[in-house]
Amino acid sequence: MIVRDEVRKMKTVAPLVAAMSNEARCKALEKIAEKLAEKKDEIFAENKKDLDAAAENNVAAPIVKRLKFDEGKLRDVIAGIHQLITLEDPIGKVTLDRELDEGLRLTRITCPIGVIGVIFEARPDALVQISTLCIRSGNCPVLKGGKETTFTNRILFGIIYDAVLEAGFPEGCMLAVEQHNEIDELLTCDGLVDLLIPRGSNAFVRYIMDNTHIPVMGHADGVCHIYVDKNADMDKAVNIILDAKMQYTAACNAVETLLIQRDDAFLEKFIPKLTQALAENKIKLRGTKEFTDLIDRYASDVKDGAADGGALDYESVDESDFREYLALIVSAKLVDGVDEAIDHINLHGSHHTDSIITEDSTVADRFVQLVDSAGVYVNCSTRFADGFRYGFGAEVGISTSKIHARGPVGLEGLVTYKYKLVGHGQIVGDYASGKSHFNFKDL
Amino acid sequence: MIVRDEVRKMKTVAPLVAAMSNEARCKALEKIAEKLAEKKDEIFAENKKDLDAAAENNVAAPIVKRLKFDEGKLRDVIAGIHQLITLEDPIGKVTLDRELDEGLRLTRITCPIGVIGVIFEARPDALVQISTLCIRSGNCPVLKGGKETTFTNRILFGIIYDAVLEAGFPEGCMLAVEQHNEIDELLTCDGLVDLLIPRGSNAFVRYIMDNTHIPVMGHADGVCHIYVDKNADMDKAVNIILDAKMQYTAACNAVETLLIQRDDAFLEKFIPKLTQALAENKIKLRGTKEFTDLIDRYASDVKDGAADGGALDYESVDESDFREYLALIVSAKLVDGVDEAIDHINLHGSHHTDSIITEDSTVADRFVQLVDSAGVYVNCSTRFADGFRYGFGAEVGISTSKIHARGPVGLEGLVTYKYKLVGHGQIVGDYASGKSHFNFKDL
Repeated sequence: MIVRDEVRKMKTVAPLVAAMSNEARCKALEKIAEKLAEKKDEIFAENKKDLDAAAENNVAAPIVKRLKFDEGKLRDVIAGIHQLITLEDPIGKVTLDRELDEGLRLTRITCPIGVIGVIFEARPDALVQISTLCIRSGNCPVLKGGKETTFTNRILFGIIYDAVLEAGFPEGCMLAVEQHNEIDELLTCDGLVDLLIPRGSNAFVRYIMDNTHIPVMGHADGVCHIYVDKNADMDKAVNIILDAKMQYTAACNAVETLLIQRDDAFLEKFIPKLTQALAENKIKLRGTKEFTDLIDRYASDVKDGAADGGALDYESVDESDFREYLALIVSAKLVDGVDEAIDHINLHGSHHTDSIITEDSTVADRFVQLVDSAGVYVNCSTRFADGFRYGFGAEVGISTSKIHARGPVGLEGLVTYKYKLVGHGQIVGDYASGKSHFNFKDL
Repeated sequence: MIVRDEVRKMKTVAPLVAAMSNEARCKALEKIAEKLAEKKDEIFAENKKDLDAAAENNVAAPIVKRLKFDEGKLRDVIAGIHQLITLEDPIGKVTLDRELDEGLRLTRITCPIGVIGVIFEARPDALVQISTLCIRSGNCPVLKGGKETTFTNRILFGIIYDAVLEAGFPEGCMLAVEQHNEIDELLTCDGLVDLLIPRGSNAFVRYIMDNTHIPVMGHADGVCHIYVDKNADMDKAVNIILDAKMQYTAACNAVETLLIQRDDAFLEKFIPKLTQALAENKIKLRGTKEFTDLIDRYASDVKDGAADGGALDYESVDESDFREYLALIVSAKLVDGVDEAIDHINLHGSHHTDSIITEDSTVADRFVQLVDSAGVYVNCSTRFADGFRYGFGAEVGISTSKIHARGPVGLEGLVTYKYKLVGHGQIVGDYASGKSHFNFKDL
């Protein structure tokens, strides 16, 4: 396949897809849900081929769990499709309606972005979610999934594409790319592809960003922070830290760095609680020297392994060595208070999601106002940063950019707008010369 | 000056500027307007130095007109500032307010982007417009203006910066960059600068895009089209074409390509009108062979120079040679109808602004729906694509990207948002296990 030729065809088809009615787009989604249910045995059979290959290659159990497409995942993606249908149409909304002068009317209308390339990890449910988000929002997707689910991707794509054609969508409105080298070809299609959404490792996303002129939406890092204020409820704090680190350790919204207020009365009680919880859950601590010294001072039993849960695994590091672990490791340092926490997060974080634990609402408000991240949380886990949990139905990814879409990206992030200006022969010369005058009036 | 150090300081100041109240931001604008009026003689004296240097360098008259900062331009920028004050505050708007579950509330709030680098042409009024747009929207600007107005830029920046400090803004909230090599340093400040807005030539904008990891908003090209349908009012069409080409020939929203419906009855009448108007106005025509053959057939007097206005200057070219002229030259070709016009514009245009001239509203609607450009116009000049003419007060530039902001960019394009999530200890584990359930409720 010559990717450029296919994408060029898609570019001419994209305006037709953008013009499809809300009804037609919802009908397509219904057909997809139906066909997925109908063909489930075929899908599971193809998925078994991928799982067998993974077994042969001794792929680790947590990864295999992701590759698997079973009754449960099928039920979830179908439920997701039905939720997408119920969401408000993001297309055709008039967001500005203004008379510039008598008989010269400006309207701004939301419309699909057009051709969107999504490169995603080996997760069959992701293929369904991304395709259906694109179809709901009138966009044409170019899909490249992880090679570990090649068979499953192929049958899912076939089913979805057939369903949208049956629903009246034009041929060429979706495209599957299977070969890894075709990604490089896709990267050169600026002017044809309007947006790229890479999902995957930091290095992979960075590679995409460095090798294309197409706009890229996504995030390279997820260094999320939890700041524990001296007025924190300690049990909430520990509970939230454990959830944020352990509930899905490899996720971009998992916590990586703890910032804790330098307050002796608080630390004396909090350090034993925190370190014991970390030890019990086999979470390694990488703290500044000042921080690990606190373990000697306040939690010598956890240090020795005399407490329940065994000895804490920890080391002293320079804070310049704090990083994204995506593993059962957490960095920690002390800060004077909320302002130092804010400065640290703004300069060293990745503007993804950061949470404060405090019962002091003034301090919480300051944190929320001044932390410059897509998600600023009070007394809850950073793991909530997710399109489904925000009620978006699904997400195509999470953006740490401040441009276009920020945070979990659902339908609204797949939309742009155009300005429509309708007149009856007006020229700018008449306004420049003073013969005509603008008379702005919002309608 | 080490640009990186200054920008790093600005990054820590940016959240404080973002937290400034609407009142404080408007007060700053009022102070700027006052001080500009107060110091006008000093400004004009500095501007004279730039004009003298331009005279010494034999700078062309139209350029000198841009460099000049006189009573008229001062009046215009002060009027613009007062208009900006009256516009609705773009910051702090709640665009989503949703209970995810009892006691777990998600809000999405608009906020400034942060640190914005703007590199603009030698036009002193642009410096005032860009600075005041940034201040109104709570952003910190890094400003690099054209070197031909160095003296004027310096005094204007000084006056504006003093005014915002007096209004209570923190030191370091604005930065002027004067040396051309400092642009390259600025381009390396990803992670510190949130957005770059380059204005200038195609080659310059492309250079910026190719040499930075910072998101870039702007447009490299402005190949705008006018499609003349067989049901066009011919006088309107000619009038609009002349305005779109001549009212400001070097502007990005000037028309570059004419597409005209292949309809003999229409062409027989329209070609003489059009070619005579072009000849009279010394506009050179570069048409496809089919198009220039029409001149022989229907407008031989214009060809010979026998008509009023003298002979038409024209040549036959391949349509692959159509381009952005920014001069009194226009490309032309015939198309079968609106669908071919749409395909041509979508594949060969720059998605800036394209206009249809027709009295047939069905055809107009199809054009507006299917043309994939920031501005889609009916029966008016492409020159209307401009922030002031759209009622935005001013613009920082025009975007041909489909990501973030599209078309003329005013206050709304300088804004992003953050998600705030407030709970009382909620963790994702409880939702994953089924102990808790999401119960989305928009508030």
